[in-house]
Amino acid sequence: MKNKNTLKVRFLGGVGEIGKNMTALEYGKDIIIIDAGLTFPSVDMPGIDIVIPDASYVIQNKDRVKGIFLTHGHEDHIGGLPYLLKDINVPVYGTKLTLMLCEHKLIEQKISDYTLNCVSPSAVVKAVCFSVEFIHVNHSIPGSCALSITTPVGIVFHSGDFKIDLTPINGKMIDMPRISEIGKKGVLLLLCESTNVEQEGYTMSEHVVGETLDRLFVDNVKRRIIVATFATNVHRLQQIIDLSEKHKRKVAFSGRSMINVVEAATKVGEINIPENLVVDISKIKNYADKDLVIISTGSQGEPMSALTRMAAGENDQVKVGNNDTIIISASPIPGNERNIYQVINNLYRKGAEVVYKSITKIHVSGHACQEELKILHTLLKPKFFIPVHGEYRHLKKHIKLAKEIGMRDSNMLIAEIGDTVELTDRTMKRGERFQSGARYIDGLSIDDTQTVVRDRKRLAEDGLIVAVCCVSEDSGEIMQEPDIINKGSILSEEQVAEAKKVVYKTVNGFNVKAVADMGDIRNEIRKNLRNYIFKKTKKNPMIIPIITEV
Amino acid sequence: MKNKNTLKVRFLGGVGEIGKNMTALEYGKDIIIIDAGLTFPSVDMPGIDIVIPDASYVIQNKDRVKGIFLTHGHEDHIGGLPYLLKDINVPVYGTKLTLMLCEHKLIEQKISDYTLNCVSPSAVVKAVCFSVEFIHVNHSIPGSCALSITTPVGIVFHSGDFKIDLTPINGKMIDMPRISEIGKKGVLLLLCESTNVEQEGYTMSEHVVGETLDRLFVDNVKRRIIVATFATNVHRLQQIIDLSEKHKRKVAFSGRSMINVVEAATKVGEINIPENLVVDISKIKNYADKDLVIISTGSQGEPMSALTRMAAGENDQVKVGNNDTIIISASPIPGNERNIYQVINNLYRKGAEVVYKSITKIHVSGHACQEELKILHTLLKPKFFIPVHGEYRHLKKHIKLAKEIGMRDSNMLIAEIGDTVELTDRTMKRGERFQSGARYIDGLSIDDTQTVVRDRKRLAEDGLIVAVCCVSEDSGEIMQEPDIINKGSILSEEQVAEAKKVVYKTVNGFNVKAVADMGDIRNEIRKNLRNYIFKKTKKNPMIIPIITEV
Repeated sequence: MKNKNTLKVRFLGGVGEIGKNMTALEYGKDIIIIDAGLTFPSVDMPGIDIVIPDASYVIQNKDRVKGIFLTHGHEDHIGGLPYLLKDINVPVYGTKLTLMLCEHKLIEQKISDYTLNCVSPSAVVKAVCFSVEFIHVNHSIPGSCALSITTPVGIVFHSGDFKIDLTPINGKMIDMPRISEIGKKGVLLLLCESTNVEQEGYTMSEHVVGETLDRLFVDNVKRRIIVATFATNVHRLQQIIDLSEKHKRKVAFSGRSMINVVEAATKVGEINIPENLVVDISKIKNYADKDLVIISTGSQGEPMSALTRMAAGENDQVKVGNNDTIIISASPIPGNERNIYQVINNLYRKGAEVVYKSITKIHVSGHACQEELKILHTLLKPKFFIPVHGEYRHLKKHIKLAKEIGMRDSNMLIAEIGDTVELTDRTMKRGERFQSGARYIDGLSIDDTQTVVRDRKRLAEDGLIVAVCCVSEDSGEIMQEPDIINKGSILSEEQVAEAKKVVYKTVNGFNVKAVADMGDIRNEIRKNLRNYIFKKTKKNPMIIPIITEV
Repeated sequence: MKNKNTLKVRFLGGVGEIGKNMTALEYGKDIIIIDAGLTFPSVDMPGIDIVIPDASYVIQNKDRVKGIFLTHGHEDHIGGLPYLLKDINVPVYGTKLTLMLCEHKLIEQKISDYTLNCVSPSAVVKAVCFSVEFIHVNHSIPGSCALSITTPVGIVFHSGDFKIDLTPINGKMIDMPRISEIGKKGVLLLLCESTNVEQEGYTMSEHVVGETLDRLFVDNVKRRIIVATFATNVHRLQQIIDLSEKHKRKVAFSGRSMINVVEAATKVGEINIPENLVVDISKIKNYADKDLVIISTGSQGEPMSALTRMAAGENDQVKVGNNDTIIISASPIPGNERNIYQVINNLYRKGAEVVYKSITKIHVSGHACQEELKILHTLLKPKFFIPVHGEYRHLKKHIKLAKEIGMRDSNMLIAEIGDTVELTDRTMKRGERFQSGARYIDGLSIDDTQTVVRDRKRLAEDGLIVAVCCVSEDSGEIMQEPDIINKGSILSEEQVAEAKKVVYKTVNGFNVKAVADMGDIRNEIRKNLRNYIFKKTKKNPMIIPIITEV
């Protein structure tokens, strides 16, 4: 019966960052899920489109799951929802823009059976033994919330992604009064994001970007302006739109996700576009450069994005030239640096001016820096603390930061993906490990194992040799010279000829008719070819021996 | 005859950065080469070990080449030398550490026929119509030089890689008096590096790192200290050695390139190691943690480096634990962020403390920032200017910087790889394009084309299908069920069965005996399989059809 008095916090999968894509709370029989995000693959996962959490644990216990609660509408928090809903059809709760973006994904993936429940900030959702309060926070997408979850053992406060913006674009500051009240009631556990824990001070207000942009509009009064930013940064879009109106320019949107997000945000009233301001991207030829602002995707140098295609001269709608000023209103996400710099180089080659991070105030982060994190800790005064939403190094730094402001080591821990943490009203300890991790999504398929990715890395690194040998089913004799096919690997003609001999000799060394398992011959071919090729090239290509009996 | 009065500057290959790995000066019949470096491959070149410049132009004109002049001993300036010397055996000139590092490479690559001429800073080498003066500069490796090259049309000043360090470790400041004198004589063309042109102000002195390290030695008095840095940063090594002596710790070196460079620098007197200070890495168990400093490679998270293996628990000689403080005394080179952060995460997981870029003064750059670049421009007052050693965006910024201090647009240009620039004593203009670019080195082979890399990317993205079909040479009949081998691609069992049928049907559709070119059948198999697989999986694997006639 002891278990019944324990709250279990389960950290489900993803890669790299911990406690970001999906978290589950479990008490007795009841489970709720916080967020259902995805991760974009890193360069060592060739051909993989996206990575979602391995949600087997909650799927196996799907009858116990009472709801999915979404903090905000970024891909790393909602992008896995369509995959999860295929297996667990439970009510989904979120604010209006979050749900609008979810709905778009669900329709795209032809999922029709779902229940989306729109929640306003400050509302409370009861889910059996849990009651979940949505609390408005500032972040780089509207409708972002922290969750204050009252459980039978106490309050669990999940920060979501947040910053403290004292001059937010829509006038709505993070709900500090409510957070203070919850702190006074007493918080058992704080789960707090850690993205910017290495940054000192405070994150600048989104407002600051508007001031910089205003100056750039003035400096480039005769030129066409192209701004690349994250489509979901709706307040950034709002500022660009407002400035365009002020400076008497028309606005055109470029890139599919930009158009989708603007449509969704307009529907739910999170963006406000004056009439007759927007022109279709196909009509921009009708306007002078000085009368135009193009808002584009591609701020990370994504290979197929609108900006990347402009830089490559492959965007039919926007041809970049020496009267263009391109403003990249974003920071490179680690791993994207090479791509975005290549885009910048190519834009310069086309004669354009490019404004990027060297002007410091052209982008601000959506995540709390050290002082803001300290404010949240101080207001909530949680008994226990688990840092989330960060690589291990961030979580470690966040533990140090909490310690600096008085938290005891024994009341904090770092969880890994697949960890369970068990809480009572006065204790916190590590519980069992459970199956979690990453699932790779590749085209239309889901693959649970990592074999495919391993094979691809091997193929990419060292290429491939196919060795074909025909033997007579009757006599076991080799019927003609073996064939060697050689892709992505570098063999000279002589080496190919020599490799054929290796195959011939190997097969000839067997009494083929007496061999029970042709796999033995294939293994021997593989071994001998591998030795030969490694000796000659110091490479270790994948070798596929094929023996055809005819 | 006009051509005889023209100096041609040729920008040879590499990738990404322009005017870095190799440059040639040509006047009349004579050619000299500046640097012979390599580039490390980016993530979109799977399996490629290194990239060297395509030097065909100078190889085709090898009888005219009078010498190779090396500015300093970094890989991107000397790493291509063994490949070049295979084709062009001309005298090589450089300072002592540079040549020592070259010699090590030449021996490793079994090249025996070469002439290395050791040059002291301030010395002048005559090479037919060129006379090349080596000028001492500060940089992150000892023995770095700028080159002042007197040609028949005027002086070409090549900055090499440089910074201005007013408190250098070995006491030798960049030779500003000589640079001023050359400026007074009059410089025709400045070729100046651009690495840090986006950074305002001045680069900090190497000395500053020593002060930070000293504090870290004090703060970690009871712990083992592991410092990861670039092996070639000999002055950094010197500082760590001096501090180890001061704090009464022994030093052990970890990583092959670290040991090689220390050996080379010791031989030429560029590093000074007190007797009995160094212990072999295999003997560190005999010393208490507090008495030990390990200096290691791997500051970029390189997969096989000493530090990466420590972080993974795979370094037999150094087991990292909670009494270790690891100092990463380097900045991530763009593209290496993910690797180095993964190493840091894993070191934290082992309980170690990690000090990295968050403490700002743990690393300084070896390259001049904006104010230092302005000083060089101002001292030399060149007539013409071509920015080198940077991506296009850097070169563009460098042009802007030169303009700010008075250079005219018409006297500057940006060259690309494969460009020739022609100079007389009063003109500079673009000349012909010539063959250059990148050559990929893969294992022991050199490949001139990009086919192999393209194949590998394809294999990595979408995997591979091998389709094998045996037909009778006599009758043209299919002799058994076709075989499908499926690597790095995701086909279900039913899809494999279906794909076999596609192959069967396709081959059956031909009158095989009447087909002159089996390539026609293979193409048809490829087409039909591709359509089927794309329809089912939205993937486009490489398809290798094999038809065996027996």
